[in-house]
Amino acid sequence: MSQAPPARAGDPIDAIDTPALVLELAAFEANLEAMAAFVRGSGVRLRPHAKSHKCPEIAKRQIALGAVGVCAQKTSEAEAFVDAGIGDVFVSNEVVGRAKLERLARLARRAKVSVCCDDAANARDIAAAAQAAGSTVEVFVEVDVGQHRCGVAPGEPAVALAAAIASAPGLRFAGLHAYHGGAQHLRAVAERRAAVAQAAALARDTRARIESRGIACPLVTGGGTGTFAFEMASGVYGEIQPGSYVFMDADYNRNAWADAGAALPSFAQSLFVLATVMSAPAADRAVVDAGLKASSVDSGMPILVGWPGVAYAKASDEHGVLAIAPGARGPAPGERVRLVPGHCDPTVNLYDWIVCVRGDRVEAVWPITARGALA
Amino acid sequence: MSQAPPARAGDPIDAIDTPALVLELAAFEANLEAMAAFVRGSGVRLRPHAKSHKCPEIAKRQIALGAVGVCAQKTSEAEAFVDAGIGDVFVSNEVVGRAKLERLARLARRAKVSVCCDDAANARDIAAAAQAAGSTVEVFVEVDVGQHRCGVAPGEPAVALAAAIASAPGLRFAGLHAYHGGAQHLRAVAERRAAVAQAAALARDTRARIESRGIACPLVTGGGTGTFAFEMASGVYGEIQPGSYVFMDADYNRNAWADAGAALPSFAQSLFVLATVMSAPAADRAVVDAGLKASSVDSGMPILVGWPGVAYAKASDEHGVLAIAPGARGPAPGERVRLVPGHCDPTVNLYDWIVCVRGDRVEAVWPITARGALA
Repeated sequence: MSQAPPARAGDPIDAIDTPALVLELAAFEANLEAMAAFVRGSGVRLRPHAKSHKCPEIAKRQIALGAVGVCAQKTSEAEAFVDAGIGDVFVSNEVVGRAKLERLARLARRAKVSVCCDDAANARDIAAAAQAAGSTVEVFVEVDVGQHRCGVAPGEPAVALAAAIASAPGLRFAGLHAYHGGAQHLRAVAERRAAVAQAAALARDTRARIESRGIACPLVTGGGTGTFAFEMASGVYGEIQPGSYVFMDADYNRNAWADAGAALPSFAQSLFVLATVMSAPAADRAVVDAGLKASSVDSGMPILVGWPGVAYAKASDEHGVLAIAPGARGPAPGERVRLVPGHCDPTVNLYDWIVCVRGDRVEAVWPITARGALA
Repeated sequence: MSQAPPARAGDPIDAIDTPALVLELAAFEANLEAMAAFVRGSGVRLRPHAKSHKCPEIAKRQIALGAVGVCAQKTSEAEAFVDAGIGDVFVSNEVVGRAKLERLARLARRAKVSVCCDDAANARDIAAAAQAAGSTVEVFVEVDVGQHRCGVAPGEPAVALAAAIASAPGLRFAGLHAYHGGAQHLRAVAERRAAVAQAAALARDTRARIESRGIACPLVTGGGTGTFAFEMASGVYGEIQPGSYVFMDADYNRNAWADAGAALPSFAQSLFVLATVMSAPAADRAVVDAGLKASSVDSGMPILVGWPGVAYAKASDEHGVLAIAPGARGPAPGERVRLVPGHCDPTVNLYDWIVCVRGDRVEAVWPITARGALA
């Protein structure tokens, strides 16, 4: 049931059918290299989040540049990467329910598989599944360091869960997952720095308490595209998990990347939705063929590139309405435009293929293998 | 690259893997029958919009109950339905660009295919493609009756375009597409009635002007789930295009369906996202495994069913945070809950399969064949 690829390697970019998800390889490669260079020699490991791209071709390039493996967010997503030859996948999320845990434990026979846990009963279930499968699952205690989503409270509740995991057969206590998702999108650098400082302090204290019980806590992992430099500098985190840096999006582009304190590494926009104007019925309006099934609007409208005075104003299922300011020139029917998605992760998840371009040519078309991997 | 089906026919509903898109067959069948009964004998044709379901199994059931065919919104979507044996598909949208029009014209060799047009140059391009393919494409002039999206202005601009189409080789002028999308979600019945009255007046006047030039205007088509009864009553529309009525969603459920003037036919919620609680870390919070990749949030958060004092408060990519009011009981980890999607169309587009249930059993699992059909 996959859709036909919208282009073939070697095609001119004008031949790409629209709407299409397009990756500018020069910017993409620069982003991969910038992250790799920033991490290199730091003593901190890079484990990029693959929920952003869902694409083994991208994971392989990240690993070739030094990443230790990838994060996934669902068991089926992890499975897609293991099937593609990725040997080390961290499901940075809770997995609950017998069938899902059996699947996870079977996967751990084929690759190094780790998972989050925030509940003692769930730890027992993971252990039972691992024992039944004859595998070892590495388990991180997820600590709520400010996100207020999943995660056990820092301090003693986390210590008790770590102790339970450390003593469970079939499990290996791998450390703490201390991810602060809400911090990624705080706009000011100082706000993000402060949020991570607080998260790191909670993780440091929790780790010390665990170690004071004689339980080794090998790793604290966390951090995303908005904050990874702060986790790295904290002295607490041994691994970072940025995902969106490979693509960027309109929401991350609204973050500030420098303040009086420091400049953060920044990344170029490499991901676009290519759209065609299908109607220009009025002087103040044009309509493109990419609506909310082509660019997720959960974090706002996509941004139109290169048309001064013209903005993507409104999305319906299959239509995007461009508002043309008085005096501005809008695109004509048949013209092709580029959109920066509001939020890269759910936008990528709408497509079967990512069309990789360099200059005016399509260089490759990669399958988004884990598209729709919800289970 | 399709995902594995989350269940098999005959499974107990407890065996459905989550998140899953679930269709309650009893409610679904009642919705199909209610619409068919309302239309039967009215002289107005029903052409349901298949962009909502993207599922040939559903289209076949609509046609078995009297629908004349389906609407699709993209050429690739139309192709999926023709491939599945649907013989009459209206692409209720503009199709622009040579490759897309060649594809559309080829499709018209295999089925009755119609399309919208709001531009004379586009009409010439459709005609060229039809002539090259040796097919006839039926063309509706899309008139802007209040939606302010695509569509030529009513009155003389529409007449001129109709004349151009009527005289073009390879084309057949099929009438007017006069759809008012914005009217569907006006909350009060009186507001929707008034918006459609205005749309119908514009369509009536435009049709009269076209016919006064000696050009036959066989059909005015339009209307959605929120307004179809008003288009039917107008005496202008000969065909209605509702799509969401088969499923319903949180947004349509916020519409009023009766006022002092009249009661409209109403429909039961048949579509749900089945989710599992994966964390319950605090008394005021639980987290389900269905986030914004499992239920589109463009029209608001999904609605949790059956848990008084508990609400789906926040979606991230793979997490849904349930807020539990003081004193209310929330679901425990491993418990399964049902969500009513905020907006059915883009939610269905996130899934490869729709799991059809009756009572406590899975009766069928239907492929969402046109999922991702953007081109």
